[in-house]
Amino acid sequence: MSRDDNGGSFVGVNWGSTNFRAYRIADGGGLLDEFSRPAGVAGLKRPEMEAIMNELMERWPDTAMVYASGMIGSNIGWAEVPYAAAPADIAAIALHGHATSIGRAPVHIVPGVSCRRGYDGGPDIMRGEEIELFGFAALEPAWNGLLALPGTHTKWARFEEGRITGFFTSMSGEIYDRLTAAGLLASIVEGEASDGPVFQEGVQTGLARQLGMATLLFGARARVMHGILSKPDAASYLRGLLIGSEIADARAMLPDLGRAPVPLIGSGPVCKLYAAALAAIGAGSYFVDSRAACIAGFHALHRARIATGRPA
Amino acid sequence: MSRDDNGGSFVGVNWGSTNFRAYRIADGGGLLDEFSRPAGVAGLKRPEMEAIMNELMERWPDTAMVYASGMIGSNIGWAEVPYAAAPADIAAIALHGHATSIGRAPVHIVPGVSCRRGYDGGPDIMRGEEIELFGFAALEPAWNGLLALPGTHTKWARFEEGRITGFFTSMSGEIYDRLTAAGLLASIVEGEASDGPVFQEGVQTGLARQLGMATLLFGARARVMHGILSKPDAASYLRGLLIGSEIADARAMLPDLGRAPVPLIGSGPVCKLYAAALAAIGAGSYFVDSRAACIAGFHALHRARIATGRPA
Repeated sequence: MSRDDNGGSFVGVNWGSTNFRAYRIADGGGLLDEFSRPAGVAGLKRPEMEAIMNELMERWPDTAMVYASGMIGSNIGWAEVPYAAAPADIAAIALHGHATSIGRAPVHIVPGVSCRRGYDGGPDIMRGEEIELFGFAALEPAWNGLLALPGTHTKWARFEEGRITGFFTSMSGEIYDRLTAAGLLASIVEGEASDGPVFQEGVQTGLARQLGMATLLFGARARVMHGILSKPDAASYLRGLLIGSEIADARAMLPDLGRAPVPLIGSGPVCKLYAAALAAIGAGSYFVDSRAACIAGFHALHRARIATGRPA
Repeated sequence: MSRDDNGGSFVGVNWGSTNFRAYRIADGGGLLDEFSRPAGVAGLKRPEMEAIMNELMERWPDTAMVYASGMIGSNIGWAEVPYAAAPADIAAIALHGHATSIGRAPVHIVPGVSCRRGYDGGPDIMRGEEIELFGFAALEPAWNGLLALPGTHTKWARFEEGRITGFFTSMSGEIYDRLTAAGLLASIVEGEASDGPVFQEGVQTGLARQLGMATLLFGARARVMHGILSKPDAASYLRGLLIGSEIADARAMLPDLGRAPVPLIGSGPVCKLYAAALAAIGAGSYFVDSRAACIAGFHALHRARIATGRPA
């Protein structure tokens, strides 16, 4: 007898550019099982996407509904699903989306969210993070304010009255990853970034915005060659520059930044860096595990689907 | 009978991260022969460096001296040669350097130049571009002022009274290359960048520095997803952002920018983009072929070596 005999379950899949993460969730919200693969859509062809979903169906054969969020709904995923325009609540996410099959799995691909920034009129988009945002809101009911989701493409979002009302994205994580994987900066970086005086110096330089990032990043190499910066410290300096510059953007676009502690939804190591950089401008923050937010978000979505009369 | 029977010759090698370019030059300055290989030091082990220099000696067996400039003198090259500190004239470059053999070739590895920027106290470095700068100065005697060397790591330099007195580097070319080769921006770019309204819009946005580059670059993807920017135009927009931001740095650090036309030493296509971006801030410019500047620079170096009593 499985635990499901006392109630239904569903599956949530967070399928981004670089990872596949699947959660089997009881209708009541508890996590029953999970697995993940380093199988992001950026590296998969359609038969490979089918294969991984068939693996999911073998593991959880009675699955009646899979919610899939992230880049799986993009032009490099299974099907391009139109964004829900901000302000967007969970009902908008539940109502829209794309019903399909991937392999033997019945899948509801979640729409992402799009917005226009008030600050400069620039457009922005998210795919996948909306589930974490709604999950966080389910974990902290009646929560209003700013949040950040640090990662490869960090999102800074405003959540008000149950709706994602605006956000912006900085790809500082991808810039760091790609520029230190090969090329000029690869030879100066040894080890991981961590908080400390060198990280904070990078943060201050990035915040000051006296020079553009392309000049500052080359400057890091020049500092190593001049003997001012050691290779074990170079990662911290580079990360500091990028996160500092990103926080300068956040401060410009979100004038209330720092008025309340900022939830940082992500993984521990990267959130620690953001917390340290926010502290440098006097802003508090606290850590929220992105996995917990993701599971809560799929559960909120499932309840919203049932409420709209479109259950699994 | 070879042309050399009437005089000596020497060899100049511009050996950067990605390319090897060798010039056989008559003592009088004329180009006798040349060859190049896509064999930058970033991809070569020491035996491979020896092999390419042995190929050079087979092609030009009577070579008595090879001047080698660029990343061959760096920590990823054959030997790390200390920089000459700015202000540096050609005599400083001629006097210092590293005498060695690479394979069967007798080589003088040229020192690069280092500086401290007056603007922010930041350090900067160049390897290889100094030869082009001295070459330009030999082609336009008594020239004083600003120059730019657009490329993977663009240099903006000040040349006064025969000396490189200061410079800064922007790695905007490498950022563009690496971020469009794979990852988030790779899927939005089709074709090459060119001047036009979309490039100019990118330049203005980069110049304004209202937001940091990590936010602006992600915004380019959002513009494509919103249907505001077409994929054939995306390269022009991205290049415009990066070059515009770089010119904002140049304007901040070099307040006399635009007072006189700026020589752009490089290759045609990239210099065209810089010329178009400079025109947007009312600054004139003109194109200087980097190959011609490089050959003239090696010739100037060879004469300086002879003048200092250290001929080939």
